Amino acid sequence: MGRVGRAVIAHGQDFEIREYPVPEPEPNTILLRQELAGLCGTDVHNWHNGIEGEMLLGHENVGIIDAIGEGVTMDFVGNPICEGDRVIFAPGTTHGAYGFQSDPDQPPHFRGGFADYIYLCYPDTCFIKTDAPPKVAVLIEPFTIGVHALMRANVQIGDTIVVQGSGPIGLMTLICAKISGAAKLIMVGGPSRRLELARRIGADVTVDIEEVSSVEERTELVRSHTPRGAGADVVFECAGSLPAIPEGLGYIKYSGTFCEVGHFVDIGSFDLNPNRMLMRRNVRLEAIWGSRPEHFVRGLPILEKDEFPFAEMVSHVLPLSRVREGFDALSGEYELAGETVIKIAIGANEE
Amino acid sequence: MGRVGRAVIAHGQDFEIREYPVPEPEPNTILLRQELAGLCGTDVHNWHNGIEGEMLLGHENVGIIDAIGEGVTMDFVGNPICEGDRVIFAPGTTHGAYGFQSDPDQPPHFRGGFADYIYLCYPDTCFIKTDAPPKVAVLIEPFTIGVHALMRANVQIGDTIVVQGSGPIGLMTLICAKISGAAKLIMVGGPSRRLELARRIGADVTVDIEEVSSVEERTELVRSHTPRGAGADVVFECAGSLPAIPEGLGYIKYSGTFCEVGHFVDIGSFDLNPNRMLMRRNVRLEAIWGSRPEHFVRGLPILEKDEFPFAEMVSHVLPLSRVREGFDALSGEYELAGETVIKIAIGANEE
Amino acid sequence: MGRVGRAVIAHGQDFEIREYPVPEPEPNTILLRQELAGLCGTDVHNWHNGIEGEMLLGHENVGIIDAIGEGVTMDFVGNPICEGDRVIFAPGTTHGAYGFQSDPDQPPHFRGGFADYIYLCYPDTCFIKTDAPPKVAVLIEPFTIGVHALMRANVQIGDTIVVQGSGPIGLMTLICAKISGAAKLIMVGGPSRRLELARRIGADVTVDIEEVSSVEERTELVRSHTPRGAGADVVFECAGSLPAIPEGLGYIKYSGTFCEVGHFVDIGSFDLNPNRMLMRRNVRLEAIWGSRPEHFVRGLPILEKDEFPFAEMVSHVLPLSRVREGFDALSGEYELAGETVIKIAIGANEE
Amino acid sequence: MGRVGRAVIAHGQDFEIREYPVPEPEPNTILLRQELAGLCGTDVHNWHNGIEGEMLLGHENVGIIDAIGEGVTMDFVGNPICEGDRVIFAPGTTHGAYGFQSDPDQPPHFRGGFADYIYLCYPDTCFIKTDAPPKVAVLIEPFTIGVHALMRANVQIGDTIVVQGSGPIGLMTLICAKISGAAKLIMVGGPSRRLELARRIGADVTVDIEEVSSVEERTELVRSHTPRGAGADVVFECAGSLPAIPEGLGYIKYSGTFCEVGHFVDIGSFDLNPNRMLMRRNVRLEAIWGSRPEHFVRGLPILEKDEFPFAEMVSHVLPLSRVREGFDALSGEYELAGETVIKIAIGANEE
Repeated sequence: MGRVGRAVIAHGQDFEIREYPVPEPEPNTILLRQELAGLCGTDVHNWHNGIEGEMLLGHENVGIIDAIGEGVTMDFVGNPICEGDRVIFAPGTTHGAYGFQSDPDQPPHFRGGFADYIYLCYPDTCFIKTDAPPKVAVLIEPFTIGVHALMRANVQIGDTIVVQGSGPIGLMTLICAKISGAAKLIMVGGPSRRLELARRIGADVTVDIEEVSSVEERTELVRSHTPRGAGADVVFECAGSLPAIPEGLGYIKYSGTFCEVGHFVDIGSFDLNPNRMLMRRNVRLEAIWGSRPEHFVRGLPILEKDEFPFAEMVSHVLPLSRVREGFDALSGEYELAGETVIKIAIGANEE
Repeated sequence: MGRVGRAVIAHGQDFEIREYPVPEPEPNTILLRQELAGLCGTDVHNWHNGIEGEMLLGHENVGIIDAIGEGVTMDFVGNPICEGDRVIFAPGTTHGAYGFQSDPDQPPHFRGGFADYIYLCYPDTCFIKTDAPPKVAVLIEPFTIGVHALMRANVQIGDTIVVQGSGPIGLMTLICAKISGAAKLIMVGGPSRRLELARRIGADVTVDIEEVSSVEERTELVRSHTPRGAGADVVFECAGSLPAIPEGLGYIKYSGTFCEVGHFVDIGSFDLNPNRMLMRRNVRLEAIWGSRPEHFVRGLPILEKDEFPFAEMVSHVLPLSRVREGFDALSGEYELAGETVIKIAIGANEE
Repeated sequence: MGRVGRAVIAHGQDFEIREYPVPEPEPNTILLRQELAGLCGTDVHNWHNGIEGEMLLGHENVGIIDAIGEGVTMDFVGNPICEGDRVIFAPGTTHGAYGFQSDPDQPPHFRGGFADYIYLCYPDTCFIKTDAPPKVAVLIEPFTIGVHALMRANVQIGDTIVVQGSGPIGLMTLICAKISGAAKLIMVGGPSRRLELARRIGADVTVDIEEVSSVEERTELVRSHTPRGAGADVVFECAGSLPAIPEGLGYIKYSGTFCEVGHFVDIGSFDLNPNRMLMRRNVRLEAIWGSRPEHFVRGLPILEKDEFPFAEMVSHVLPLSRVREGFDALSGEYELAGETVIKIAIGANEE
Repeated sequence: MGRVGRAVIAHGQDFEIREYPVPEPEPNTILLRQELAGLCGTDVHNWHNGIEGEMLLGHENVGIIDAIGEGVTMDFVGNPICEGDRVIFAPGTTHGAYGFQSDPDQPPHFRGGFADYIYLCYPDTCFIKTDAPPKVAVLIEPFTIGVHALMRANVQIGDTIVVQGSGPIGLMTLICAKISGAAKLIMVGGPSRRLELARRIGADVTVDIEEVSSVEERTELVRSHTPRGAGADVVFECAGSLPAIPEGLGYIKYSGTFCEVGHFVDIGSFDLNPNRMLMRRNVRLEAIWGSRPEHFVRGLPILEKDEFPFAEMVSHVLPLSRVREGFDALSGEYELAGETVIKIAIGANEE
């Protein structure tokens, strides 16, 4: 097969498009034509610090099966597969993680989503067939973070929940909280377009951090929306800023739960007073790290039901040649083409 | 106060309206004007067997505060109350249960819902102020059964759930399952109007037991809608018939959970094979008995959000003088005035 | 290798010793020299009904590594292994179960414990190196049933626990309950030698079913030893008789837990009244089916600490030629050589 | 009643013995003759910072019922009581906490344990009759901290557990871990006499922080005792020093649990890196604040069984007149009368 495919190679803070021969799938592999690859805050953080060596980024992926290697007959949950099927997959495998592999010049080259093809090893990769549209399916990876968080948070019917941060992880967590029995959902974030989306998802109260700019005021406001001002049952910290943690701990009621879902990259430390911030509140804290195949299996049918405005979260689709614009927008003003960015996805096709 | 109120007294299978003087509330009591009182399957079962002695039935209640005894200033969750507030309350107290007290001729008489007034002791009674409309608020007691069941069932995001029985308890449990993360909801019941309501609530699949009349066919059909035919994660038995239990156990996957929510009255025994029905499935079984104040506190805000067609479940409102018609409908064809019965509520006002 | 080994072949109710060539281990297999193989109640039940075809029984095994096939370097938990190491293993694999395979004349023949050798496939088999003595190590399989039961029962510090049945499963469950925080342990069983062992393990109260022969009396006695007579927090049914289930349900307090750990074989049905036996007690029931590799990993270090009289539970060791005597004892009077039988193990060596 | 009793009044860092008239119990109260009152690290911390105003300290108490006010007939769990019974009680009530009340000159004066009498309100106080000897019973309050910690930690059979800190809270937590299914118990603390007691309780490994003085070495040593060096399942931080927290987090395996049981007083803050210390370990953290009546009810029967060297933990008993010596020892060298201090109890009787 003499086909050639493009891949966006990151090094330092530069991006470069290279062409590689498209591999014929070996036994126990499959080859996907990329449809969409989400751009994640972790990508932006790593790029901001400068990518060491060379890397083909893109770990939030959906694609179409182009060719199937010998011995592959079904997806992770046992559904039969054939060429032309759409699949999503978990980026982590026992031998590494798609979208985080170095040395893209090494065959089989296509091991990240910012490219025309993606080459999957089997059975190492949890990939699952789906009929969700690409703009919905591309969200599965961030959605699984919310699924993981909710499975750890042990939300009960009737709980009052706060989500800090209205980026993709915050909105995904909000959706999962909405379908997990919360009686009242409070979103603390911004800017306003994201909060508007949060309300459509089901946030009963939104607090705009630009409008209510002091921690004390926000804390008082959030607590005023909890039963008898006693605080929230569960707080999800999805903002990813250090001061959000002590602020969020201050929203919680005695014996409540704090889920840390915001620090997937190391941005430093803060002063934690274990007596005042943790002990006196008899609090449980769950630190949520990534997601596992189980969360993909559980989350996908929820995406497929499409009862929430998932597709609208993909605010922008950019071709491979404009990857940098996406990184710039997410490290700057969260604006692109005059519109608030929520999730940027990279598509293989040029417009 | 020389007021007089009516109460429907049941004895054997007869009903009779009596008039009693309306009590002035003693210290630590409150007096409600009844708005609506639900008619429950348990009432019908007990009446069918013949009420021993005399009893003022009605344990699913909503009313308006008519007068407040000295010392009562707030409801169970700490909200201040005043005359004119609407309240719901848990029928169980440390000293008995509203709607199940014998000797209605004994003052204070009004200790059940099929009457013009309801007299509440405090702080024994968990009563809570609400602004839900009466036709929604009257459903809180059956709704708490669903809340209790879901808190025991430990449903996880992405689960496949079956509810057996499409009466009020089944529909309430379906709503609670819908907001607890289920990816797929399967309702097995009938007749068709109830199943139509189930679909509007969120049932993805409905199985009409009149159309699919053999246990084997139903089991095969239900399992065909579960992932890889492996069975449901959780089954809620809300049908209340004995054969529904072994049938429902057959819907479950290995290591799944079976919630028994249907046998609030003793209708006899069935042959249970512990090896084949329980052990080989490594199953967990939760038997849900009634509900507690916590379930009222958790359930009420969900009712108040009114995101489900709660009010439509009250298919019929009958005045005190027509209580018997309600009992007849629920012990017969589930038809009244030419319409399928879901929940019948008794109102104080004559039309 | 021209070695020959013996195997006890069961067919119908007969046993016969055959000789088979000892296989050289293929790649990804290991060969054990059998040390001890426990005789289990399930074996006895199946034998009693007549073994269909031919079978090499014995699924509770400990052996010494005789030879290691190419590619096998470590046990299930990652410890390096070499010839001469003692190992235990879980009898269930993805392709079947040691001790339950038909057609023993088919190579590799040695797929059950009543034989001179045991041939293990890898990595299908969870086998773990141990330095426990053989009479302790041979108990790991029944011990994992207790581990599984306790992990499901959710015992809390200070609970009052009842174990019904003082056979090996009952005693193993008692040990697991003892180390899981129980404040009071009540054993209901017999005969007296087993109850004496139960007391040495830590039973605070023993009830001899021969001395206290009526269900009512036993129930009253058991409940009199629970806090305020309210019933036990958790009951483990390890007796394996049908009437033990309703009796044990009667020991439990409101909202308690009943663990069914006794019906690994189908001995029929009993009349279950779901209202009276389950609902009115708001009970949780866990049906424990076998055990999984996790339970071996967790249970083995407890056996190795040897803080309980494990070795004494192996009341009798019989050579291969006397297997039938073991079956006879366990299907009759639980006496062998004038002593009460607890666990019989089959050893490869003739005395 | 003209009796007079002594009380040790703390103000600033001074102690003074005052005499007060002994109150006749009002209805719904009971009067105890103090037997022993434990001296707690929290007392020492507060005293070290200087007691504001005046306070009668002593919240770990056991006493004999001297007189019973009208209306009191049973203890918290429903046992009948009479004069002469020994009782322990939870120091917290809905209206305050025994041993932390200001204004001891106000009647009824005796509201802390460093005195001849203790005056209990009813039913506000959870008091329970016991037949444990005073030196065992006086430990119930610190023991309940361990009970609370273990109920939150969700230890499973076969877990590897680390306890940091070998003071009374650490030793109590060690006992609770021992009876909760741990396969391996590792105690990190000192000095040697305490570690020797830890080994007798059941610690399989003890790490003396004086001998192994670097964090890196201790971490390596602790991890070398965990399965495959992967870290402990659960770590209990009972040392109460700030650096113990990041150190203890470093002992844990991926997805393990960290229980913070050491910071009952505010001693400041430390630098917490949420990405490296929490997220990357996918950790759960439980902050344990005090204990509740349930923990007394659950813990007392364990104390009463006396299967551990409880009484030996009371290393010193001092009369009221020597309270200061206890505070000095606990704020200094943990030595008194030439012996290592574990728990100091204050007795009413002068030697």
